[in-house]
Amino acid sequence: MKKTILISFSLLKSTFYNKLQKMGFSDADADKCAGVFAENTLDGVYSHGINRFPLFLQLIRENYIKVNEKPLLVNSMGSIEQWNGNLGAGILNALICTDRAIELASETGMGCVALSNTNHWMRGGTYGWRAAKRGYVFMAWTNTIPNMPAWGAKDIKLGNNPFVIAVPYKDEAIVLDMAMSQFSYGKMEDLASKGLELSVPGGYNVKNELTQNPSEILDSLRPLPIGYWKGAGLSLLLDLLATVLSGGISSHKIGEQKVEAGVSQVFVALNLNKLSHFAQVPEIVNNIIDDFKKSQSVSNESEVYYPGERSLRTRIENLAKGIPVDESFWNEILNL
Amino acid sequence: MKKTILISFSLLKSTFYNKLQKMGFSDADADKCAGVFAENTLDGVYSHGINRFPLFLQLIRENYIKVNEKPLLVNSMGSIEQWNGNLGAGILNALICTDRAIELASETGMGCVALSNTNHWMRGGTYGWRAAKRGYVFMAWTNTIPNMPAWGAKDIKLGNNPFVIAVPYKDEAIVLDMAMSQFSYGKMEDLASKGLELSVPGGYNVKNELTQNPSEILDSLRPLPIGYWKGAGLSLLLDLLATVLSGGISSHKIGEQKVEAGVSQVFVALNLNKLSHFAQVPEIVNNIIDDFKKSQSVSNESEVYYPGERSLRTRIENLAKGIPVDESFWNEILNL
Repeated sequence: MKKTILISFSLLKSTFYNKLQKMGFSDADADKCAGVFAENTLDGVYSHGINRFPLFLQLIRENYIKVNEKPLLVNSMGSIEQWNGNLGAGILNALICTDRAIELASETGMGCVALSNTNHWMRGGTYGWRAAKRGYVFMAWTNTIPNMPAWGAKDIKLGNNPFVIAVPYKDEAIVLDMAMSQFSYGKMEDLASKGLELSVPGGYNVKNELTQNPSEILDSLRPLPIGYWKGAGLSLLLDLLATVLSGGISSHKIGEQKVEAGVSQVFVALNLNKLSHFAQVPEIVNNIIDDFKKSQSVSNESEVYYPGERSLRTRIENLAKGIPVDESFWNEILNL
Repeated sequence: MKKTILISFSLLKSTFYNKLQKMGFSDADADKCAGVFAENTLDGVYSHGINRFPLFLQLIRENYIKVNEKPLLVNSMGSIEQWNGNLGAGILNALICTDRAIELASETGMGCVALSNTNHWMRGGTYGWRAAKRGYVFMAWTNTIPNMPAWGAKDIKLGNNPFVIAVPYKDEAIVLDMAMSQFSYGKMEDLASKGLELSVPGGYNVKNELTQNPSEILDSLRPLPIGYWKGAGLSLLLDLLATVLSGGISSHKIGEQKVEAGVSQVFVALNLNKLSHFAQVPEIVNNIIDDFKKSQSVSNESEVYYPGERSLRTRIENLAKGIPVDESFWNEILNL
C-alpha cells in the first residue's frame, strides 16, 4: 500500500546535495543542482524533480553527464554569445547561461546565449522564474530527442522541445513552460497504468483515429503536437533555431544516439530598466492579469489561472507543510 | 454562379497601388502597401491579401488608419528600440520595424524593435520571409483584439496573437506564421456557410462539449486555443511581452475600442554572419529539413510540408499562371 509522507524542503535539498557530492560535484555545484531538483519538487513538478533524480545519477555513472565539465564561451557577437556545454550537467549549464543572458541584457538591452553540447535542463521554468524574479523578461527553449511525428506523418521526427517565456509579476513571475506535445509520455504512462483517459485528445491510435486513451497512443507512438500542425511547425522551428544559433546538434542527430545527450538550447533576456515607461511596467502587467483573472469560469467552482500561478501556490503550501513524497520512493532515494 | 479568373501579379499590384494612391498614400508607400497585399494574395493568403483590402480602405476612410503618419523612435537601449507607430498603416510600420531590427542585428548581433500604436500587419509571414531572405533568423508577434476565452473560461479575454518564426533556407525561407487559435473566424465562417465540418475539434459548443461544427463555435464564441491550456498561456504571454516592451496597449485595452486599432508588436532579428560556424549554417538547415521530409506520410498520396513550403509552391504556380480570383469580387475591387 502506498503511503505519502511529508519531507521538508531543507531535508530534500540536503539529501540531494549529499548524493551529488558523492558523485564528484564540487560543493558549490552540488548545492546548485540539489537546489534546482528540490525547488522543482517543491513546486509540484516531480517529473523534473525527485522523480528524475535517480536517472540523473545513472547518466552520470554512465558518463553521459560529466560532473567536472564547465560551459565555455566559444564566440561573442555583441548581444549574442555561443557557449559549449561540454556535456556537463544541464542544470548547471542552464543556470550559467541564464545568468550570462541577463548580464548581456544589462549591458546591451538584450542578451542571447546559444548553448551546444548540454544536457537536460530538467524544468525549463526554473530559468524563467530566475530571470523574471530579477526583473528581466525571458525566453528560452531546448531541443530534445525525437518523440513526435511531423504533422501528417507516422514516424517520429520531432522533439517536444520545451519553450519558456517569463515576465516579472509583483515579487514573483508569470512563467509559461510548455512542451510542444499535448501530453508528456510520463503523463500518458501514469494515466494508462491507472486505466484513466486523457482530458482531451492526445494522439492518434493505430487506426489513425484521434483518441483520449493513453494506452492506444503509447502503442501507436503518435502523440499529438499542441494545435496539430501548428505545434508540429513550432517544434521544427525551435529545433532549427537552437541548432543554427548554437552550432550544436539537432533533434534528428540526438535521436541517432543511445540516450538524449548533447542537446542545444537558447536563452534570451530582455532588460526592462531602460524602457521609456519603466516605472509603469508593474501597472501594465497588473492590469492585464487583473482583467484575465476576471474571466467567467466554465465551472463555478474553479478559477482561471495564469501560467505559473498554481506552481507558486503549491510552493507556498509545500514550504509550510512539507512536500508530499511516496514513502517507499523516498527510501529508494535515501539508498541511491 | 461563381466564376474564377486569373489575375497577374503585376495587374493585382498596380490595381492596389492606384486605389492606395487615391487614398492619399505617397507613391512610395502606396507601392510598398500594394506589394504586400499582392504578395499575400499571390502566396494564397487571401484573408490577409485581396479579401482584406476593402476593409483596409474603409478603416482609412474612418480615420482608424492614418495614411500620412510615420513610425517614430521613442527610446533606444542598445539592441532594443521602442517605436511609436502613430496609428499609421500596419504594413508600412511593420516593414520599417523589421528592417530596423535587421539593422540593429547587423550592428550588435541581435535587434529588437517594440512597436506601439500600430495597426494590423496583415500576414505576419510577410516580415518573416523578408528577414529570412536577407539571411537573418527572425521572430515577431502582435497582439490583437480579444477573440478567445482563457482556458476554463467562457468569456472572451485573449487575442489570437499571431507569432512568426523564420529561418533562411536555400534562397528562400522556412516561415512559421501561426495564430494562437486553432482556426480563424474567417475559416469557421467559410466552412459554416458551406455546411462543412472542421478537420479537428475547433472549440466548445454551448453545451460545453468539444465540437468540429463551426456553426456551434460561432454560436458559443468559444474557439479553442492551440493545445488547449498551452496556447491560451502562450497567447497571454505574447500579449504581456508586446505590451510591456512597447508600452502600447494590451488585448484587453484594444477590446475596449470600437475596432481593432493601435495594437502592440515585437520584431526580433538575429545575425548569423558572425556565428563561429557561419559557413556550416546552410548545411545544418538542409540536414534538418532533409530528415524532416523523409517522414513516412500517413496517407500514401500526400507528403509532409515544412512551414512555408506550400506558400512557396503556390507563389511559383501563381506567378506562372496568374492568381485565381472570383470574378465578381474582382469587379468589386475595381470599383472600390
